[in-house]
Amino acid sequence: MSKLRFAVLPGDYIGPEVMTEALRVLQAAATPAGLELEYQIADVGGAGIDNHGKALPDSTLEVCRSADAILFGSVGGPKWETLPPKDQPERAALLPLRKAFSLFANIRPGLLYSELTDASPLKTERIPDGIDIVCIRELTGGIYFGQPKTTTELENGEFQALDTMVYKTSEIERIAEVAAVTAKARGGRVCSVDKANVLETSVLWRKTVTAYFAKHHPELELSHMYVDNAAMQLARDPNQFDVLFTENMFGDILSDEMAVICGSLGMMSSASLGTGNNSHGHPFGLYEPAGGTAPDIAGKGVANPCAQILSGAMMLRYSFGQNELAAKIEAAVKKTVTADGLRTGDIAFGRNPVGTTAMADAIIANL
Amino acid sequence: MSKLRFAVLPGDYIGPEVMTEALRVLQAAATPAGLELEYQIADVGGAGIDNHGKALPDSTLEVCRSADAILFGSVGGPKWETLPPKDQPERAALLPLRKAFSLFANIRPGLLYSELTDASPLKTERIPDGIDIVCIRELTGGIYFGQPKTTTELENGEFQALDTMVYKTSEIERIAEVAAVTAKARGGRVCSVDKANVLETSVLWRKTVTAYFAKHHPELELSHMYVDNAAMQLARDPNQFDVLFTENMFGDILSDEMAVICGSLGMMSSASLGTGNNSHGHPFGLYEPAGGTAPDIAGKGVANPCAQILSGAMMLRYSFGQNELAAKIEAAVKKTVTADGLRTGDIAFGRNPVGTTAMADAIIANL
Ligand SMILES: [Mg+2]
Ligand SMILES: [Mg+2]
Repeated sequence: MSKLRFAVLPGDYIGPEVMTEALRVLQAAATPAGLELEYQIADVGGAGIDNHGKALPDSTLEVCRSADAILFGSVGGPKWETLPPKDQPERAALLPLRKAFSLFANIRPGLLYSELTDASPLKTERIPDGIDIVCIRELTGGIYFGQPKTTTELENGEFQALDTMVYKTSEIERIAEVAAVTAKARGGRVCSVDKANVLETSVLWRKTVTAYFAKHHPELELSHMYVDNAAMQLARDPNQFDVLFTENMFGDILSDEMAVICGSLGMMSSASLGTGNNSHGHPFGLYEPAGGTAPDIAGKGVANPCAQILSGAMMLRYSFGQNELAAKIEAAVKKTVTADGLRTGDIAFGRNPVGTTAMADAIIANL
Repeated sequence: MSKLRFAVLPGDYIGPEVMTEALRVLQAAATPAGLELEYQIADVGGAGIDNHGKALPDSTLEVCRSADAILFGSVGGPKWETLPPKDQPERAALLPLRKAFSLFANIRPGLLYSELTDASPLKTERIPDGIDIVCIRELTGGIYFGQPKTTTELENGEFQALDTMVYKTSEIERIAEVAAVTAKARGGRVCSVDKANVLETSVLWRKTVTAYFAKHHPELELSHMYVDNAAMQLARDPNQFDVLFTENMFGDILSDEMAVICGSLGMMSSASLGTGNNSHGHPFGLYEPAGGTAPDIAGKGVANPCAQILSGAMMLRYSFGQNELAAKIEAAVKKTVTADGLRTGDIAFGRNPVGTTAMADAIIANL
């Protein structure tokens, strides 16, 4: 029996609630497929601070190091907002994890079922079949990390601040590969987003991506778009894209715009892949929902577990190569929400909402 | 009789067509108000290249220098797309103009009449009263211009590219002042957009803006938002903003997202203000529509002249202090498009479209 070893970091508020359900769904899917789940649960975020004095305790990092993937919940909340920014749960948990595992590729599906178009701010006639795109963001380079990063006092008493955006060929090629692999399993179209009319880093980005695809993936359809135009096109007609990929800061902006256009954070999963392969020969990755800890509804059993469950499915696909099993879970989630019409409060739109556990029960029944 | 001296740079394709109508409207508004229009027309863009060998001929720059404002049309088109990027109409005309007159403040109204909500990609119920916000973008600083900007070959044969984002206190204060003045004439609310959780320039931006408003404009309501969140909020609920203002690159992205959300480029005007005052004691400025030269419909007399006319109104307001006259023109445009229901093809939505001249005639009749 093949073993899938992963770390489970539920986090805070609704984090543990939806994680419990995601683990039930993963278990129900894995067992009949002859797969054994071997996971260790560890504190992270506010739970890490409260129980071990920091958002990413050493013991938690150890659990992650001995695993082949991380299934992450959500961290943060009002309780820890008075801490200095660098010690707060989000930053102090996720940044060191990204660093420890060189998580350089952030993959966010922009998925909206046609039955949920009410949730999107876009007119339904613009997205009659819902939305189905993927945004891939470089996560460890660019202006958020580039050096120098300084603030200096000028002779006239003014201050001057400076940030540096920097990319090198190999950083661009490895994210291009992720975009290519993702596109191959989908519509085969990749749109690379840059600002090559004004930025040196974008000129190098475009040149490198073009050469890389020509050499390694000539069968894929590659196009290029300026970031300001991409921000327009996403809001105008998101389905013109198949796989959208871009550098760190542009991806930060565009993936969030995409998320809001897809309407419901409760359905949005994500993956962050590392540079190294795990014991299965697949990328180590961290998988997490996009929605946050929702302190206002924590403890009430009403949170939407779908994003956490879909994050688990992404883990099966990317870190364990279990594509069929991932697709099976995704289909079960879709059937539950669409054909069956079961909805948690965040996506109810006038229907009677069901609770977190009932939603997971129905998904398990649909596996 | 007070004289309003301005340069008229119609540009290419539909540029001259809509400019002719804008000048007729301005004339019809100015004469009864006892104002004399004294304008000089000069080639720019493709017309500059064809007739004088470059997109911004020296003679055109001279005409601009002797004026108090520039009313700009649109430049570019397929005819000049084979030129090197730096010689193409858009870049080779607008960048030197921005530089010559230190045009540091770009003001774009995000205006959508409630009667035109069909044109917006957003659901009508999200914008029942249309959209009425303003985006102010810093235009001469930040990463598009910061030095160093280099591409180097590393020892291992890879290339590394680098851009520099840089801002100093005085650059931030002067754009903050434009945001404040704009907000005072509107709802009194300013949202400053940055990425202060990761960028040094944004930390300085936020600190400087906060101090500047506290000292000079304490009566205004100032808030701050991260750029990725702003990209979401614009698509979710644009009217939560009154005046949005931000640095160059963030403004490039957000103002374009705003434009598409407002639906019709044919209605979108803009102003770019310089650092110096003109002979009227108001800022020198360049005023232009957002829509481009539309080569496909050029010469047919069907282009929407509203954006050019509204740009003329902005010129009256910002560079000549003629607020009432500007408001009068804006009201006439609104009445023509909404109450009268006259529409050019781009905003017709099933109505019988009218031509460029008929639209301007109706606006003049409504003055
Ligand atoms: Mg973000
Ligand atoms: Mg732009």
